[in-house]
Amino acid sequence: MRRSERIAAVAKMLIDRPSCVISLSEFGERFGAAKSTISEDLSIIRDVFSQMHLGKIETLTGAAGGVRYIPFLWDHAIVETVDEICKDLADPQRILAGGFLYMSDITSSPTLMTRVGEIFATRFAQVEPDVVVTVETRGIPIAMMTARAFNVPLAIVRRTSRVTEGTVVTMNYVSGSAKRIETMSLSRRALQPDQRVLIIDDFMKAGGSARGLVDLVGELHAQVVGIGVLVETEVPEHKLVPEYESLVVLEQVDDQARRVLVRPSKWVQSLAQSGQA
Amino acid sequence: MRRSERIAAVAKMLIDRPSCVISLSEFGERFGAAKSTISEDLSIIRDVFSQMHLGKIETLTGAAGGVRYIPFLWDHAIVETVDEICKDLADPQRILAGGFLYMSDITSSPTLMTRVGEIFATRFAQVEPDVVVTVETRGIPIAMMTARAFNVPLAIVRRTSRVTEGTVVTMNYVSGSAKRIETMSLSRRALQPDQRVLIIDDFMKAGGSARGLVDLVGELHAQVVGIGVLVETEVPEHKLVPEYESLVVLEQVDDQARRVLVRPSKWVQSLAQSGQA
Repeated sequence: MRRSERIAAVAKMLIDRPSCVISLSEFGERFGAAKSTISEDLSIIRDVFSQMHLGKIETLTGAAGGVRYIPFLWDHAIVETVDEICKDLADPQRILAGGFLYMSDITSSPTLMTRVGEIFATRFAQVEPDVVVTVETRGIPIAMMTARAFNVPLAIVRRTSRVTEGTVVTMNYVSGSAKRIETMSLSRRALQPDQRVLIIDDFMKAGGSARGLVDLVGELHAQVVGIGVLVETEVPEHKLVPEYESLVVLEQVDDQARRVLVRPSKWVQSLAQSGQA
Repeated sequence: MRRSERIAAVAKMLIDRPSCVISLSEFGERFGAAKSTISEDLSIIRDVFSQMHLGKIETLTGAAGGVRYIPFLWDHAIVETVDEICKDLADPQRILAGGFLYMSDITSSPTLMTRVGEIFATRFAQVEPDVVVTVETRGIPIAMMTARAFNVPLAIVRRTSRVTEGTVVTMNYVSGSAKRIETMSLSRRALQPDQRVLIIDDFMKAGGSARGLVDLVGELHAQVVGIGVLVETEVPEHKLVPEYESLVVLEQVDDQARRVLVRPSKWVQSLAQSGQA
């Protein structure tokens, strides 16, 4: 097998399993090549990925050593994706009666949400989550793609407790905006004590759901290390969770004037303004 | 840029966007290379992917022409993945009170469900769906990964109608096993008339949900071209939908003997027995 052929196959194996460590022996056996040859292949892939901002190839030494592909988006790619989402959300056709905005097609778009998952994986790379937690329904695809980028499990909090979830911890909480009492439950099996939890959701208004998720994770003795949402509303300014990251800020949905005002979040704007983008 | 470097980057761009057509000009501009050079790169990638069963590289001619990567699993890889799922499901620790089986960790495992999405994309390649439809909640990750493999949108049917879905079509149906009346609703915006719909779900007992989905899709004047479920129960033998494909058959959950009997479906068994696997 020629080098260029082997490189195509090695790249495929790495990209197919984001953040999974693959040992040099596994590559070696698969391609009938010496470890030193594979090492050279990997270094070519690493260099070109780094040069073209296609993600990181990371080498881990030691007994459990090997190499893995980490989705890591360059600032420019993040800004571009968020701009695209903003433009799409601003379409007045999305306005629903009562000043709501239709966005289910965006939150379940495989291409876009793969990208958003990689954005959250880039943003929260440093907190090294063990598990991604979300609450049904619309946030599931985003949370799934984030969990995929990190190669960690996804735990889905349910609004109603289901017999197929086994023993669950159920919590009542007051929704931040509507002041309604809501219920959340999570299977005891889905979360281990002391696990580092990244909370991912599609939408935050007052932050009641996020607050509920934080409390629920606490009840299971795990630890929230980050909160990421795709879209937050500008009002209310103060959310029920102190720290979180959003990608898009929804300023206003004007039902009368048929106008949607939406902008990239402060974090995304800071990336756009930094030299790199 | 050397050929081996360019090949790593070209492969990355293809694999990142399954089933998306990328034009030779896009590659050319990105890499500052002539179309003929890119063509040669692509033919190397195509050959090695085909030889090592890593998926298909397909060339489309004409105005909208270009090249795309299609996730396509070899029989052997399908059998291996399903065997792994069966082994995991057979763990007696999964037995819940009342003879239910805990499987939420499997249905939301990013690595496994990426694979299962590719299995369904392989199985239903010929029916060329325009959209994947599922019903909340547990089937969403599988449906998402299937939609990703096909590069088509995902539409999520809700159990309760939500104001953020806009105008919905709501349907009552009788669940096949519990004989309860259940409700399903789907946003009118999520499905266009005449679209070819692939239904994906995690579990089928009597097939009531699937039947409901088929009827709901019909109400929106779209057409069901396939139904895929991860796990079906052996009993009842006759489901409420005439044709579907499952990957795993759950024979029995014996709460007393702490035993779970599970096997690959007939289709998967036929792949295992065929010469190719």
